Amino acid sequence: MTEIVSVALGSRSYDIHIGPGLLGRAGALIRALDGRTIPKRLPVIVDEAIVPLHAPAVRASLADAGFEPVVIQVPSGEGSKSFTQLQRVLDALLDAGIERSTMLVALGGGVVGDLAGFAAAIGLRGIDFVQIPTTLLSQVDSSVGGKTGINSRHGKNLIGAFHQPRLVLADLDTLTTLPQRERLAGYAEIVKYGAIDRPDFFTWLEANGQKALTGDAQALTYAIKESCTAKAETVAADELEAGRRSLLNLGHTFGHALEAELAYSGRLLHGEAVAVGMVMAFDLSVRLGLCPPADADRLRSHLSAVGLPVALPDHPEGGWQVERLLTHMAKDKKVKDGRLTLVLVRGIGQAFLTRDVAVSDLSAQLDRAIAA
Amino acid sequence: MTEIVSVALGSRSYDIHIGPGLLGRAGALIRALDGRTIPKRLPVIVDEAIVPLHAPAVRASLADAGFEPVVIQVPSGEGSKSFTQLQRVLDALLDAGIERSTMLVALGGGVVGDLAGFAAAIGLRGIDFVQIPTTLLSQVDSSVGGKTGINSRHGKNLIGAFHQPRLVLADLDTLTTLPQRERLAGYAEIVKYGAIDRPDFFTWLEANGQKALTGDAQALTYAIKESCTAKAETVAADELEAGRRSLLNLGHTFGHALEAELAYSGRLLHGEAVAVGMVMAFDLSVRLGLCPPADADRLRSHLSAVGLPVALPDHPEGGWQVERLLTHMAKDKKVKDGRLTLVLVRGIGQAFLTRDVAVSDLSAQLDRAIAA
Repeated sequence: MTEIVSVALGSRSYDIHIGPGLLGRAGALIRALDGRTIPKRLPVIVDEAIVPLHAPAVRASLADAGFEPVVIQVPSGEGSKSFTQLQRVLDALLDAGIERSTMLVALGGGVVGDLAGFAAAIGLRGIDFVQIPTTLLSQVDSSVGGKTGINSRHGKNLIGAFHQPRLVLADLDTLTTLPQRERLAGYAEIVKYGAIDRPDFFTWLEANGQKALTGDAQALTYAIKESCTAKAETVAADELEAGRRSLLNLGHTFGHALEAELAYSGRLLHGEAVAVGMVMAFDLSVRLGLCPPADADRLRSHLSAVGLPVALPDHPEGGWQVERLLTHMAKDKKVKDGRLTLVLVRGIGQAFLTRDVAVSDLSAQLDRAIAA
Repeated sequence: MTEIVSVALGSRSYDIHIGPGLLGRAGALIRALDGRTIPKRLPVIVDEAIVPLHAPAVRASLADAGFEPVVIQVPSGEGSKSFTQLQRVLDALLDAGIERSTMLVALGGGVVGDLAGFAAAIGLRGIDFVQIPTTLLSQVDSSVGGKTGINSRHGKNLIGAFHQPRLVLADLDTLTTLPQRERLAGYAEIVKYGAIDRPDFFTWLEANGQKALTGDAQALTYAIKESCTAKAETVAADELEAGRRSLLNLGHTFGHALEAELAYSGRLLHGEAVAVGMVMAFDLSVRLGLCPPADADRLRSHLSAVGLPVALPDHPEGGWQVERLLTHMAKDKKVKDGRLTLVLVRGIGQAFLTRDVAVSDLSAQLDRAIAA
């Protein structure tokens, strides 16, 4: 059974399919996309680690639909969101003779989706692409909404484009091969949607999240569908992040600072950093008298219960420093007129944007998090 | 006296100011752009060759308007439309602490405009920018319409984005320091607008073009204004080049092949290549029985009269080859389903798109051009 969530963006609207067996239907679903002719040669940008797992099924499905897939492999890991890999992928696409009507497929997690989506955005000034996310994190977050990009030495995702996919295929089968730690990291983003503005979904997760995480297909499908619906509604309301879309950064400004301090080393996966970041955002909200302590406790308890981190990990060089974390936060894209925009909460499901947090309050929160 | 041409693109509409003394008014005109606050720090990406000529005036004007200009120099020449320079400029912008509301200024010819515009398109996933074109070519062509990008080893402008400027300032004073050969190259694009769909403008150019080229301010202003109007109308009707905008490629598919074969060496400036390319497109149209020979003669005569080339220059390695030119043409972005889209003509001011030209006819035309 496949669920379909639509992202309503006028002429750039598209569907997210969620269910089992979608890799095997990729060719037919792409073929069915619209009336226009898609050139036979179809580049597939794929994370090299998942080539043995999923490339054969996608390749066969594309070939069955009359396409000639050209597989372009990308090294695993955040390091691939670089100028070097971007240039390599673009060269490979141009070597493959892409045209403006070429359809590109991104097969893998968030790194491949962001990189391939950005290459699609700027190759020949923009070609269409399909996201086939193979991690829980990318299925509920990065594959939806059209944010693409690479990292700079100044920070994550500082170079990129808004470029919506034409189709997203979230195949549940790809999650069975996913390490539990990565599944959990993706789950943190699912919790985030509940924490932002879906209190009923948060309550549902408290009761059923563990089931979704341990392979109950129905619970997992529901969790992914609710997350994609939440993201789709937000993106449809504010595609270019002029306002409401920024709420999706709950836990991210803190989380990015932690990731940056750890040099994106894998010591803290993105989703894990978001889990810790959300706890920090709730704690700060409590300290500022904005949020009942009970709501922060609920968040912390649920994240802990499923096995996600809720506090800073050990620092590899022996010391977290408030000043360094503040510097990382100041490089965030959400800075305006030199002031940081933060997502805080009035409770579970009541996130809001603010630029009014004093640096002293922020420092104090970082201090407490380091001391904890 | 300043003329203003508007490019009507809904929320992305903008004005092109044409006239003398605009560099000195840049700061005030940017300040007057709209209600929102533009951060004080304002990056100016500038061609290093024109820094001594124009940077002081722009810098002073920006400072007078309360901005703090940060000048980022780019080496002169087509070679700067590279991944290396793109990364350098983006790093410099991030070093300068750009925010999403930062306004960027591109000061120079087409190379700087294309590179800086592309950096603006992908820095923080898109910031606003102002074009201050300082060559005739960029004033009448590349600074208007939002095409930005860099070159690849596969060809020109194969990587880029559509990103409209917020304002274009075409200051006539910058043309006084322009070498005559470059002024002429820009003039070729002016002739192109007449040849595409403005027969009356073409007739006006036959009578007044020479005057515009030799410094008659009124004639020059009129020629630039007509060109910008022609481009603005075309871009407003077809921003993303789904159809009509492709007509602007008259002479360009041939011209790009010549430039590519000469490795963009400066042996043939872009505008010169377009002049020769237009002659080839008219000649092919005549051979195919589509265009009266008298119209091709008018084009050739006018281009010759002002001093533009109308035939292939000597090949540096002793031989133009049809096969090599066809290969260059096949790499053009205008290829669809493996077929080349060409702009041909039924006469002066009657250009049209076609995908029906047989390779044999194309080869024969290239053969004649080489033999001529």
